[in-house]
This record gives sequence, C-alpha cells and structure tokens, in this order.
Amino acid sequence: MTDVRGLVDGALRAAVGRLDPRTYRVAAYHLGWADAEGHPRAAPAGKALRPALALLSARAAGAPQESALPGAVAVELTHAFSLLHDDIMDGDRTRRHRPAAWAVFGEADAILAGDALLSLAGEVLLEAPGQGSGRAARSLATATRRLIGGQARDLEFESRRSIGLDECVAMASDKTAALLACSCAIGAVLDGAPEPLCTALAEFGSDLGVAFQLVDDLLGIWGDPKVTGKPALSDLRSRKLSLPVVAALNAGTAHSERLAELYAAPPGAGGADEDAARDAARDVAEDAADAEHARLEEMARLVEAAGGRAWAEAEAGRRVERAGARIASAGLPAAVREEFLHIADFVTGRDH
Amino acid sequence: MTDVRGLVDGALRAAVGRLDPRTYRVAAYHLGWADAEGHPRAAPAGKALRPALALLSARAAGAPQESALPGAVAVELTHAFSLLHDDIMDGDRTRRHRPAAWAVFGEADAILAGDALLSLAGEVLLEAPGQGSGRAARSLATATRRLIGGQARDLEFESRRSIGLDECVAMASDKTAALLACSCAIGAVLDGAPEPLCTALAEFGSDLGVAFQLVDDLLGIWGDPKVTGKPALSDLRSRKLSLPVVAALNAGTAHSERLAELYAAPPGAGGADEDAARDAARDVAEDAADAEHARLEEMARLVEAAGGRAWAEAEAGRRVERAGARIASAGLPAAVREEFLHIADFVTGRDH
Repeated sequence: MTDVRGLVDGALRAAVGRLDPRTYRVAAYHLGWADAEGHPRAAPAGKALRPALALLSARAAGAPQESALPGAVAVELTHAFSLLHDDIMDGDRTRRHRPAAWAVFGEADAILAGDALLSLAGEVLLEAPGQGSGRAARSLATATRRLIGGQARDLEFESRRSIGLDECVAMASDKTAALLACSCAIGAVLDGAPEPLCTALAEFGSDLGVAFQLVDDLLGIWGDPKVTGKPALSDLRSRKLSLPVVAALNAGTAHSERLAELYAAPPGAGGADEDAARDAARDVAEDAADAEHARLEEMARLVEAAGGRAWAEAEAGRRVERAGARIASAGLPAAVREEFLHIADFVTGRDH
Repeated sequence: MTDVRGLVDGALRAAVGRLDPRTYRVAAYHLGWADAEGHPRAAPAGKALRPALALLSARAAGAPQESALPGAVAVELTHAFSLLHDDIMDGDRTRRHRPAAWAVFGEADAILAGDALLSLAGEVLLEAPGQGSGRAARSLATATRRLIGGQARDLEFESRRSIGLDECVAMASDKTAALLACSCAIGAVLDGAPEPLCTALAEFGSDLGVAFQLVDDLLGIWGDPKVTGKPALSDLRSRKLSLPVVAALNAGTAHSERLAELYAAPPGAGGADEDAARDAARDVAEDAADAEHARLEEMARLVEAAGGRAWAEAEAGRRVERAGARIASAGLPAAVREEFLHIADFVTGRDH
C-alpha cells in the first residue's frame, strides 16, 4: 500500500494545508507528519487502508484510480477526525506509539482539530469534479452519522452491566464498518456508477469492516505491543468490552462468570489509571501492579477458555468469506477483485 | 421571528431525530427541547437568527422561503455545533440560563453530539432538491472552516500578551460573521441564483456578523444579566479579550495601561473559577469576591474611559450602514430588503 500513500499524500497535505496554523499544527501531529513542535517527521503513518479501498473502488467502476482521490482524502480525513475525538472521549493517552494529540496540545485544540478534519472531509469531496460528488458527500455524511452512533453506543456500553453479542456486533458495524463500507464504494459513487455496483462494494466493505474490528479486538488482547503500539493485554487493562470479551461473557460457562467478576472489579494499579498508580507509594504500587498483571493474564485465559477467542477468529473468517462472495458476482475486473480480496486477507492477517 | 421558528422547527426536529438516542438526548437538551432527563420542555429557544436570514435569502432570489428550509436547518445545526463545542473548550458552564450540555452530560457526550450536529448539517443540505445543494454545502463547509479558524485564533489570543484590534476584528469575522454571511446567502445559493447576488448577500451578512459580535461584546460587559443569561460584567470576569476591551487596550491612554494591569492579574474569587471560591473558607471568599467585584467595575469604567465602548458602538453602526449599502444595489424585492434591514436593526438593538 506504499503506492497508495504516495498517491494520496499530496492531496491530503494540500487539503489539511487549508486549515488555520493552530489547527494545522495539531492535525499534522495527529497525522504523523510533524512532531509536537511542528518539525517535519519522516512518518511511518497509518496503513492508508481506507484510501487504498477508495482508489480501488474507482477501478471497480472502470474509472482511473486518480478520479477517486477526493474520496480517498475525504475518508482518511474522516477516519483521522474520529480517532482524534475518540482518544479524548475514551481518555486514551497513546496513539500509534506516540502521545495522543489531546495529551500533547490539550483537549480544546484537539476537539477543534477534529472538527476541522470532519468539515474538511465534506469540503474536499464536494470539490470533486463531476456529477457524483454530491452523492459521494451524502454517502460519507451518512457513514459519519453511523460512526458517531456507534461511538455513542460504545460509550453507553461502558455504563451497562450486560451487553448482548448481537448489539456489540451492531455497534462495531456502525463504529468501524460504516466508514470502511463507504470507502469501498466512494470511488464508484464519484464516478456515477450504477447503484447495484456501489451497493455490492459497500456490502463488501461492511463485512470487511466487522472482520477488521474482530481482528483489532483480538490484537487488543493477544497482540504484540511492538506491533500494536499499545501495552500488552491493553484492552483488558482498560476493561474494554471488545467483541471477544463480550462473546466470552455471553457464553454461559463458568469461565464467563469468573470473567464477569474480574471485569466488575475496579482495575488495580497498572490498570486504566496508571498516573494514579505512579503517584501512590512506590512499593504499594508495585504490589498492586503485580496483582493486576496476574488478573489480566487470568482474564485473557478466561476469554479463551469461554470460547471468545475462537468465536472471534471464526467470525472474522466468515465475514471475509462473505465479503468475497458479495463482490464475486458484481462484475468487477478480475484484477480489481483480486486486489480487494488481497486487502481483505491483509487486514485479517491471513497473509502473514 | 416567531414564524421562522415555527417554519423551521419541524424540519430541524426531523433532522436531529435521525441521531442515535444517546446523541439525540444531548442535542435535544442543547437545543432547548428537553430537560436533562429528556422530558419535553416548552422552550424559549434561541433567536433563530440564522434560519430567518436563510429563509429571507431565498426570497431575495425570488424563490419561496420554504425552498431554503434545508439551508435554514443546516446553518442552525452548524451554529448549535459550534456553541456546544465552544462551551467545552472555553470551560463555560452556563448557556442560555441553563447549565451547558457538557456540564450536564459530560465532555465525551457533548463532543460527540457536536460532531453529530456538524455532520448532520452537511447531510441535510445535500438532500435538498435541485442543482444548488452541492454549491450550498460547499459554501457551508468553507464557512465552517473559517468559524473553526476563528475559534482557534480566539484560543490563541488567551495565551498572548497583546492583541491588535485588526486581528481581533479578523477573528470575529471568521468566528461569528462567516456563518452569518453563509446564512444570508444560502437560500439564494440553493436556488441557483447568480453569483453577484449571492456575493452581495454574503457581504451583507459578513458586516452584519461583525456588528452582531460588537453588540454581543458590549452586552458581555454592560448587558442586563436577566436578558443575557450571564452574570453581570461576565466577559470581564473571565478576562475575555472582547472587541471593546481590545480597542481600549490599544487606545494608548493611561486607562489602557491600568486596564492591561488588571487583565494581567489572575482573577480573584468570583472570577472564572467560582467553584474554587466556593470551596475556600467562606469569609475569606467573601472578602475576595468583594475585591474582585470592585476590580470588575473598575475595568468596565476603564474600557469606557479609554474609548472602547464608544468605538464598539460606532463600529457596529458603521457595519450596519455598510451592510445596508451592500444590498441596496443588489436588486432585491423592496420588501425583502426591508426585512434584511429590520433584522440588522433588531440584532444591533437599534429598534428597542
């Protein structure tokens, strides 16, 4: 996907370059282009997954991939907006191995930068030449509304005692998959492609998006910190109700009950509030950290023993299969279909 | 403007009704439709200034005012978004005589609700029938970018020692006037009106917007708390660098120097951080509150003595005059021009 980054980067930088200097500074940091002082940074930025899908979706409609550039920029801006604001809402201080933007610039500037990126996404899309730009902008706005609704449900889940697996999957469909679905179709929409093709591409993206979230949630428990950029057992530390955890909690086993007990207890030292632990007396904190680490490891074993891990892995596989079936009959050029499937395998880790 | 509220309210409620229940709850509270528990509330809501201008701008182009409804809804949603997020950024706990949404629902939900309203504004506009919807949505996105840039500069001003009057006016042009300018043209833009008419309407709105901010800033110092919904001398309490204050600080008089001294000193009890004062020992707090109140009254006298009040009043008048001149030659129906001028007089308090 290096090529995609090269193709999209200039347009993305030109768009973000329109922002006022103060907001630009926060956005450039968040996008990995600059350090906290504003100095350029050779950035191993994000995966550019959404832009890659957007460019590919133009080719799916027989259009040159460059025609989807405004779409690629818009979905990446929307994604960046959502990460920026989610980190504030969730209190996450780390993003891609670096301090989150709000932790560097403060909440006010991070809120404002997120607003700017969200608004800019629509602006860029509406400037695209051709008949499809209005339809594309509507599709992005609808996806953004679902993304926000998904985040709202995610916030709500935190205050609830029990969550069904279905509603958790529905939340992920909105929070993660809606924008991926939009990305997979936006190039075709911009090109004015027929509705059935756009729908097939969006459905591919929707299943891919849920698979992506399942894999992300698996990495949030069993992922290598060096790769994920988050501490080991990260999602358990924050008592996140991720899909494998919710599957395990709903499995009705003795492991499920013990897991629910551990999740209900407040995180000890080394948990979500590491700052507080740091402030406490050091040896007390170390004992507490050891105890918490033991709890986290027990939780991970329980999720696995209750079948949460196996379910998530199998469900991710099923979603990728179904995604493939969705576009098999959509009449795409074979090379384009292969690339979509390759991205799906890449995203779900089946190619390494 | 009661009629406008009646006309726009249904469409506004239908749009906001699309949001997920959690985000809707925050938005409905913020818009004055519901109390904190979600019970309906007979709402003396905002002035509906922007929707009124939007509807009028359709008539300026010879179109029925109903054709501008999506524009009226979109500018009101954008305005609501900006107030919601600004209150968080500025730490303002009160909005229209009630606790601000973030003070009721927390920052996370208030951030999310603002995001939802911003995105919804674009969505509503893009659904408008006719050729003009894409152009209208672009115009709103550009105005939103300026609004955000203005807020960014406002945040920046707080950390600076000195601010020029010109840059302060430029900030207000972006933060307040850009959306008013967009509102004054959006109905015409939706109708596909010729560029010169749209430009004239937007220029009218731009001058009106700066006048509006000047009057708002005057009320922030000398306004009646019963009318403004804010404590007396409110903007001085928070050491806000409003336009009359910046004019006074830049006047080069002895009063300016003394005002700068008072602004540089940290606010005492009764200042921005009233909670802290409440926590302090009661009699110490009362003494401090008395001292702070005396300082606030001195500041108000100094702004006036340095000419800040007179400048702001005169500048507001000049802006309204110029706004009137902008549309005098734009070929509007006489009744529509009269209504625009009437709104301008209403906004700047010249009709009461």
